[in-house]
This record gives sequence, C-alpha cells and structure tokens, in this order.
Amino acid sequence: MPIPIGGPLSLPLRAFGITRSKMNPDICTICERSFQYVKKQRHITSGATILFADIRNYTGLSQRVGAAELGRIVSLFQTRAAEAIWANDGIVNKQMGDGLMAIFNFPIIRKDHAAAAIMAACDIQRACAQAFRDIDSAEEIGIGVGIHTGDVQIGEFSSFRSDFTAIGGVVNQAARLESQARPGEILVSLDTALQAPELMGGTEARALSLKGIEQPVEARVLRVG
Amino acid sequence: MPIPIGGPLSLPLRAFGITRSKMNPDICTICERSFQYVKKQRHITSGATILFADIRNYTGLSQRVGAAELGRIVSLFQTRAAEAIWANDGIVNKQMGDGLMAIFNFPIIRKDHAAAAIMAACDIQRACAQAFRDIDSAEEIGIGVGIHTGDVQIGEFSSFRSDFTAIGGVVNQAARLESQARPGEILVSLDTALQAPELMGGTEARALSLKGIEQPVEARVLRVG
Repeated sequence: MPIPIGGPLSLPLRAFGITRSKMNPDICTICERSFQYVKKQRHITSGATILFADIRNYTGLSQRVGAAELGRIVSLFQTRAAEAIWANDGIVNKQMGDGLMAIFNFPIIRKDHAAAAIMAACDIQRACAQAFRDIDSAEEIGIGVGIHTGDVQIGEFSSFRSDFTAIGGVVNQAARLESQARPGEILVSLDTALQAPELMGGTEARALSLKGIEQPVEARVLRVG
Repeated sequence: MPIPIGGPLSLPLRAFGITRSKMNPDICTICERSFQYVKKQRHITSGATILFADIRNYTGLSQRVGAAELGRIVSLFQTRAAEAIWANDGIVNKQMGDGLMAIFNFPIIRKDHAAAAIMAACDIQRACAQAFRDIDSAEEIGIGVGIHTGDVQIGEFSSFRSDFTAIGGVVNQAARLESQARPGEILVSLDTALQAPELMGGTEARALSLKGIEQPVEARVLRVG
C-alpha cells in the first residue's frame, strides 16, 4: 500500500511520526523507524551498491578558511550530493562532517543499482564542481567518490537508535576506495564496474593497496567533465 | 524550564515530537530538531572536546567473521561506548559503521569537558575489553580513541536534515588522532591534556604525522587496564 507523504492525506500519518524520510524525500519514515517490525528481523543480508563521497583536502581547507566559509562549503556539498543521490533512487544513509554514505537498492529496489550509483557519482562531481567554481576559497578543493557492490548487512546495530544502516566488508571497501580517490575522481570497484559495463568506456584501471586488505584491489577510475 | 522526558507529564510533549534524544537519553529532542530556533542562528562557535572511537582492524574482522557475528560485535561496541559517553555528560553525535563521534560541553555544559571525555574514553576501553573477552572472534580486536579540544562550529550543515553536528579543524584533528590509535589506546591531544593534567600521569608522549597537517602533532598516549 503506498503511504501518502505529501498533501492532506499525509496529515493523520504525521501524528504518528510517519513523514518524509530525511534519507530520501520520496520514501517515508516507516522503514527507518520500524526496520525490525517491517522486516521481522533485526538484520537482513541484501545485495546493494554503497557510495562514499567526501571533500578531499578537507583538513587543509578547515585550517585555511573561517568557520562561516567552511560551514557554507560543507552545506553546499551535502545538499548537492544528496540531490544527486535522490535523483538516482539512492538514500543518504549517513552524513559525517565533510563526508556521506549512500545506499542503492535499499529500500528503493533498482536492478541496475550499480549504474544508478555511478550516475549519482557523476552528478555529484558535476554539481559540486559548478557550485565550488563560484567560491574563491573552494577553488582548489574537489570531491572524491568510492563505489563498491555486493552483499551487505542492513539493520539496526545500536540498541538505542532505530535508524538502520549497512555494515560489512563491502561497505568498508567502498570507504577505503573513497579514501584513495583524488579530487574529482570516482573510484569504481571491479564488482561494480562489471554490473555497469556500459558506463565504463574510456576509464582507466588502477591497482590500489587498501588499508587492512592484503591483496591489491583493482578499480576503474572515472572522471567527469 | 526543565522539559519532562519521562513519565505521564511527557505525554503531551511526545505528540509534538519532543522526546528523549537518541544522542543522550538525559536530554530532549528540542535542541537537535530546532537548533536554529533555539540558538537564533544556523551555526555557533563553541569550545568543546571531540571524541572519536572505532574498532581497530575492522577491515580484517569484516572479512573474517560472518554477518551475524559482525553485527553483534558492532552493536556491542556502539552500546557500551554510548553508555560510557552518556555517563560523562557527552552526546553520541554520529554513528557510522564501526565508529562514532561524541561531543562534550554541548548541549550539556561541563567546564571540565576535556576530563569528561578522557574518563568516557577510559570507560569505553574498559567496557569493550570486558565485552569482547567473551567473544572468540573478537579476541584480537580492540578500540582506538582520539580526543581533541578547541573551538568547533556547531549547527546544521545540511538543508534537509535538522540534526546538528560539529565541524572544523578541531573535529578533523580528533578524527585523525583516532585513526593513528592502536587497539586499546587513547590518543589525547596536547590541548586536551593541558586541560586535564590530573589524568595524564604516567602517559607517554608520541609525535604523530597526521594526514593533511604539515607539522608533527604531539599527543599523549593513555592505556587502560
């Protein structure tokens, strides 16, 4: 049954705390507040694509610019990135300072979740490059993105918060990929690339040694613009 | 005016979405949902102590143990750490996978916020060491903590989420310190240590080169147990 999250029909639901999700305004808060109730279990395993993005050279930036300016740059990034993720059916699951984590294929199911995440990443790079162009202090900065696909554990991993998140080796590797991305780069894991070969034309291969992972990991490097 | 967050008096407030904060059950949700309204501005600058903690060697762990086991270990860490932070008047501002960020001195004011954060870190290490002792797969893992004190920018940095967070160079350096902590270690910045000299007896000095920060940073290393 579709849940009305806008208009007058949504009013009675709002009284019960059911409203637009902050993770994606196209979905309601039922599954983030009542994960266990909806899924009948605390955790599920699900195929998904995980995207991490952050502002590269943020440490230098945070020492160079004033508080108001830093806040403005972070807000711009978080807003533009969220819009790009929502436009491709992903959710902004976590925001932390200058970074964020997005999930594709949960709770909005998309068979082509790998492609959706890559398209969102391209949109993030384009939108941020444009937004930062007008800010003098942001000229040298850029966004780094890491994307990986596979089985993740989704659920509540804290006894006092009811919002769900995703954990596991796949999530971790997406974060590690992002940490190796240079400004403007999107590092796409081989697993993700194989599910969206149509978007990989002209990309460069790069072997990465990632912290905590013994074997070198091969990734495709995507640049926009 | 104190806000009733438990008992029958809290019922009418709950209808307006005012309830116990997930960041700390001793405070209500007014200041996290209505930061701008309460503070009359979007961002404020405030002295605070920032604590980052995470599970060291988590990448290896996430490849070695099964999904259910990993979820159990992450839940244990998040729960024990939050209890330690709350007991010392801090808030769990962000949780992200195997890590978290806590703020001391906002919104609960404590003059000795540096000491409060260090005590919370010691409690985290003690409680997690005890909890992990009973889990075979968790035997080799340990928690790393980083703490730094200074002026941070607190407010809303996203146009679509109303929860506040802290950003700035001080927050960033706390995260960098944590990333250098070995399992079982608490890395305390010099600024934090100087505000709580009574807790620094017997600690070791360590010079660290942190990503994005040119000069080596001196920290005190605290071990519990």
